[in-house]
Amino acid sequence: MFQRAGSSRSFPKHFNPGTTGSSSGNSASVPDHGSKVSARSETSLLVLNAPEPPPPWQELSGRVRRAVLAEVNRPSSLTKCFVSVLRGLFPILRWGRHYDRKSFRRDLMAGLTLASLGIPQSIGYANLAKLDPQFGLYSSFVPPLIYAVMGTSRDIAIGPVAVVSLLLSSMTQKLVDPYTHPETYRSLVLTATFFAGIFQASFGFFRLGFVVDFLSHATIVGFTGGAAIVIGLQQLKGLLGINHFTNNTDVVSVIKAVWFAVHQPWNPDNFLIGCSFLVLILIVRSIGLRKRKLFWLAAIIPLLSVILSTLLVYLTRADKHGVKIIRQVKEGLNPSSVKQIQLTGPFIGETAKIGLICAIIALTEAVAVGRSFAAVRGYQLDGNKEMVAMGFMNIAGSLSSCYVATGSFSRTAVNVSAGCETTVSNMVMAITVFASLQLLMKLLYYTPVTILASIILSALPGLIDIKEACRIWRVDKMDFLACLGAFLGVLFGSVEIGLLTAVIISFAKIIISALVPKTEMLGRIQGTDIFCSMRQYPSAVETPNLLILRIDSPFLHFMNANSVKERIFARITGGCDATMTRFVVLDMSNVTHIDTSGIPAVEEIHKKLTSNGVQLAIANPGWRVIHKMKLAGLVDIIGEEWIFLTVSEAVEACGCGNEEDSSLSG
Amino acid sequence: MFQRAGSSRSFPKHFNPGTTGSSSGNSASVPDHGSKVSARSETSLLVLNAPEPPPPWQELSGRVRRAVLAEVNRPSSLTKCFVSVLRGLFPILRWGRHYDRKSFRRDLMAGLTLASLGIPQSIGYANLAKLDPQFGLYSSFVPPLIYAVMGTSRDIAIGPVAVVSLLLSSMTQKLVDPYTHPETYRSLVLTATFFAGIFQASFGFFRLGFVVDFLSHATIVGFTGGAAIVIGLQQLKGLLGINHFTNNTDVVSVIKAVWFAVHQPWNPDNFLIGCSFLVLILIVRSIGLRKRKLFWLAAIIPLLSVILSTLLVYLTRADKHGVKIIRQVKEGLNPSSVKQIQLTGPFIGETAKIGLICAIIALTEAVAVGRSFAAVRGYQLDGNKEMVAMGFMNIAGSLSSCYVATGSFSRTAVNVSAGCETTVSNMVMAITVFASLQLLMKLLYYTPVTILASIILSALPGLIDIKEACRIWRVDKMDFLACLGAFLGVLFGSVEIGLLTAVIISFAKIIISALVPKTEMLGRIQGTDIFCSMRQYPSAVETPNLLILRIDSPFLHFMNANSVKERIFARITGGCDATMTRFVVLDMSNVTHIDTSGIPAVEEIHKKLTSNGVQLAIANPGWRVIHKMKLAGLVDIIGEEWIFLTVSEAVEACGCGNEEDSSLSG
Repeated sequence: MFQRAGSSRSFPKHFNPGTTGSSSGNSASVPDHGSKVSARSETSLLVLNAPEPPPPWQELSGRVRRAVLAEVNRPSSLTKCFVSVLRGLFPILRWGRHYDRKSFRRDLMAGLTLASLGIPQSIGYANLAKLDPQFGLYSSFVPPLIYAVMGTSRDIAIGPVAVVSLLLSSMTQKLVDPYTHPETYRSLVLTATFFAGIFQASFGFFRLGFVVDFLSHATIVGFTGGAAIVIGLQQLKGLLGINHFTNNTDVVSVIKAVWFAVHQPWNPDNFLIGCSFLVLILIVRSIGLRKRKLFWLAAIIPLLSVILSTLLVYLTRADKHGVKIIRQVKEGLNPSSVKQIQLTGPFIGETAKIGLICAIIALTEAVAVGRSFAAVRGYQLDGNKEMVAMGFMNIAGSLSSCYVATGSFSRTAVNVSAGCETTVSNMVMAITVFASLQLLMKLLYYTPVTILASIILSALPGLIDIKEACRIWRVDKMDFLACLGAFLGVLFGSVEIGLLTAVIISFAKIIISALVPKTEMLGRIQGTDIFCSMRQYPSAVETPNLLILRIDSPFLHFMNANSVKERIFARITGGCDATMTRFVVLDMSNVTHIDTSGIPAVEEIHKKLTSNGVQLAIANPGWRVIHKMKLAGLVDIIGEEWIFLTVSEAVEACGCGNEEDSSLSG
Repeated sequence: MFQRAGSSRSFPKHFNPGTTGSSSGNSASVPDHGSKVSARSETSLLVLNAPEPPPPWQELSGRVRRAVLAEVNRPSSLTKCFVSVLRGLFPILRWGRHYDRKSFRRDLMAGLTLASLGIPQSIGYANLAKLDPQFGLYSSFVPPLIYAVMGTSRDIAIGPVAVVSLLLSSMTQKLVDPYTHPETYRSLVLTATFFAGIFQASFGFFRLGFVVDFLSHATIVGFTGGAAIVIGLQQLKGLLGINHFTNNTDVVSVIKAVWFAVHQPWNPDNFLIGCSFLVLILIVRSIGLRKRKLFWLAAIIPLLSVILSTLLVYLTRADKHGVKIIRQVKEGLNPSSVKQIQLTGPFIGETAKIGLICAIIALTEAVAVGRSFAAVRGYQLDGNKEMVAMGFMNIAGSLSSCYVATGSFSRTAVNVSAGCETTVSNMVMAITVFASLQLLMKLLYYTPVTILASIILSALPGLIDIKEACRIWRVDKMDFLACLGAFLGVLFGSVEIGLLTAVIISFAKIIISALVPKTEMLGRIQGTDIFCSMRQYPSAVETPNLLILRIDSPFLHFMNANSVKERIFARITGGCDATMTRFVVLDMSNVTHIDTSGIPAVEEIHKKLTSNGVQLAIANPGWRVIHKMKLAGLVDIIGEEWIFLTVSEAVEACGCGNEEDSSLSG
């Protein structure tokens, strides 16, 4: 924000001191308009003599080359190359050799804790995705195994998550009704999972990591909060034991449906069981949060609740009195689902779209989770490798009856708390899930549906981050707007509308910032050679005869060139002492890009000023800016002698240098 | 692009020289990590003590207030206020009082010249818009009169133009066929004109002048060039006397239609007449361009051609041998068309869209024309008033059987060459058109249709600006891409696709520039306190123990915060002497915006560096950036003593100051 120049005295001996001295001397007397400033400091000449900036495609190709070749360290032989690629793809080959028994013991404990939380959650999320319970368990078996050998994060716990489950069901049920056509619905979900995997893997291969940055932090906070409330509202169906529910996810429809349902005769038993276990889980969890040693209690309470409630229902035969139970859960390992993936048919485009959205949301969650824990534990996460791993795990998952899995925040936190060391904890969890799929499914017969709702509901408060929303409000009002937009969009529109609102607001923010022209009047901080914004630093003072304007926009292009021009004209003609202004110094240090609309604007400014008898000086043009100005012949029009390296050099050349300074050097 | 600091000696006496001196002295010895830099220059403290920047809504409301209240200079009474508003709306009230006979004589000549060019062009453009010839003349009567009393440009000649005529017909004929349902088609065109007027007037009233900046200079060059070729191809119908032509405007469809037509039996007379007059017009125009005194010849040659060709056909009765003639042109003044404006019905949305697009294109052309001539003649154009004037003239036009009129480049050039002084030349032209509508329409009976095609074709070379395209290529390759996209989009897609391509490319350019993270390593220009990009200035050298990185992106936000972070990590860990780096100075002078994703990124950089035993210093944060960093508590995390005003101060504090310098001052 500052342009500050050493006085000419600070140049070293190899800069001709005579010339420099005379320059300061000359500049003390006001030069004639248009006269060449005879002695220019050598630094100013550097501006014009800078080498050409690399053309855009060279920068781009360099960027791509660096990104792609980052892995390949020019191996000497083909075998070594193969081994290096293999190790890149499967990080387990690297860390696996040093894996010891102590680490395994910790991973085992973490994995078992994870499974006790993961099994009931997976069943609940399958319910949210409108799939049979076993699909949630399938998704907690194959994907974690694949991730364990391919992933670079040591902490992430893989499995189905709430937001993606909601996203999948809310979008897929628009194509096919999950209750009347369960087969078709399931095949669409699996196809969407397949597409999600393909997209994720391609993002990783082509190093398009930035797609996860499309959603800003603020919009994720808003979106997740909104989705949590929507998920919570969806749970009212299970909690209240409602038969006929709405397929819409917005607040208004759900409240209408609930209102309608509670005015019919209904059985309060579901509600009572659900609520009491919800309260139990929440209390135990809050104890777990307070006493770090009891965190395992918080981790296994969902499983305990399932066991307790199942026993309760079994003993009291409450299912005969209207308590809904899960009944049959298919036993056995994931069946193959290769044939269910439909790459033709009327829904192919829609399914690909669902896959893309789920891929991005799943990656956003996983990368956010992975990054935050990697930062805590002090290691670096390779975003592109993560994407490849997630992609492969979802492709493999889609072929084995799994739906989109990703890194879950709540389970990752439990994994870390339980002391996981490597991805082996995911393997342990997967094997535990496998065992329970083989052996324990019969025991779920009497599990009440309402307990699943309680488990999901108990996980939601962690998704609504009011504190963070307040912080965003405090720091950045525009970001809060994006946050609020996403939140309200999800709540009152649909999940897609919320996402779209968020992305549009975020991009609009960039466009508007790039669009709105800002010019700042610079003043000198008295007694120094520092020129800075007079609004930001009220102690800065104007220089007589001189108007120093800084263009505070990174781009001088079609969207703002005209307004910048008009603002400068307004500043010049609107000044109280218009006749006094003899020089205008345009500080272009913040302008990094100029286009073929921006250049004529500067040209017109020069023309207009010249016709008013005012001399224009350009200070501090960027690399690309000066290059384009040279190409367009603008440098010749303005005159090389009026282009300076720093504002203070320009001011000196205008004869308005620091008086104290020039008197010293004169 | 530079951060340059005066040596501490350049501070004036009221800065405690002892402190400053000891600071330089201290800084020569390497300070301990984390130890407070005891003596900070007072200028650095200014960074932290800057007042709060105005919140976004205050800036916005200020902007709006300034814009809206610009006109109203707090008049003392209601009458004066009314008069001032009236004068604002009707500039003729200002300049009319000083209007003299000499000016009128010049305007009269210009207006008559203008009419001689405008009448045949208007008929031709009406043909292009697929309306009867008289509608072109209507549009050259009412709108110029309205503009004459409301417009602020002294040069613009108002009337129908080629691109807007093409746009209107190509979009409206998708709704209704102009040949089978001429009545409905006409009413849709008039409704679109009405909407265009409403949009234009609202843009002006709400000071949304920036909408005309949505199209960059480069895209306009490309779009106009493509549209000119498309218009030329459409003229093949008239030139060849083809009966069945395509309704599509893309090159492929038109060439197919022409190919099909010339393989049927056809009459070459139309072609011969058209071509010979086209050659005649082009030759006379090129003479007019060379000899400035004969410009009037170029201006009246279209009218002469019409008269000559009409006479030719009348005398030879060529219409009986297959030469197509205009036949009946409705005589008399513009009829009212209030009843034809349909504000209900199935096409209302589409018509509004057509109106919006035409409004923007028409304004873009008019404002570009107006601005360029205003710049030549040295007066200021009020963009918002222009929009209001254009809006009212089109609203009035739509109610009196006119279609969208705007400022035409070719006619404005003739108007200026003919010596126009004020908008009175438009009035003269309008009255001449009125007279010819009353008296001369019968004479157009035998005018061959092909001559209209020749007149339009002769105006097209001016729209294809190959020279400018070459200049754009030379200066800015990305801009050329936008230009080419618009050109090819119009040529091979449709007018709308061309526009859409242009807008998308232009915006994508901004988004990409905002997205791509750039960091530059800064080096010191030997012997000075100037730090600058080592790529741009190869003479700059690295400072030992110190890495100075400048973030070369205007935004540090969700789209690039992660990549900037990763690049900085890569720079630090990838340096050949990683262990040597003890300080990282982050020059944030180019960062004007930071959001709630950017702040955690800086925080993580700090955390990561600290864990590696490296101290982070921030130099030159912008107003909003430092404010948000303070709000988010980031300043406390980094430490106030590590935030500096300039890079050189930061370097000095890191103990890597200019040795020569410190030895002098020590």
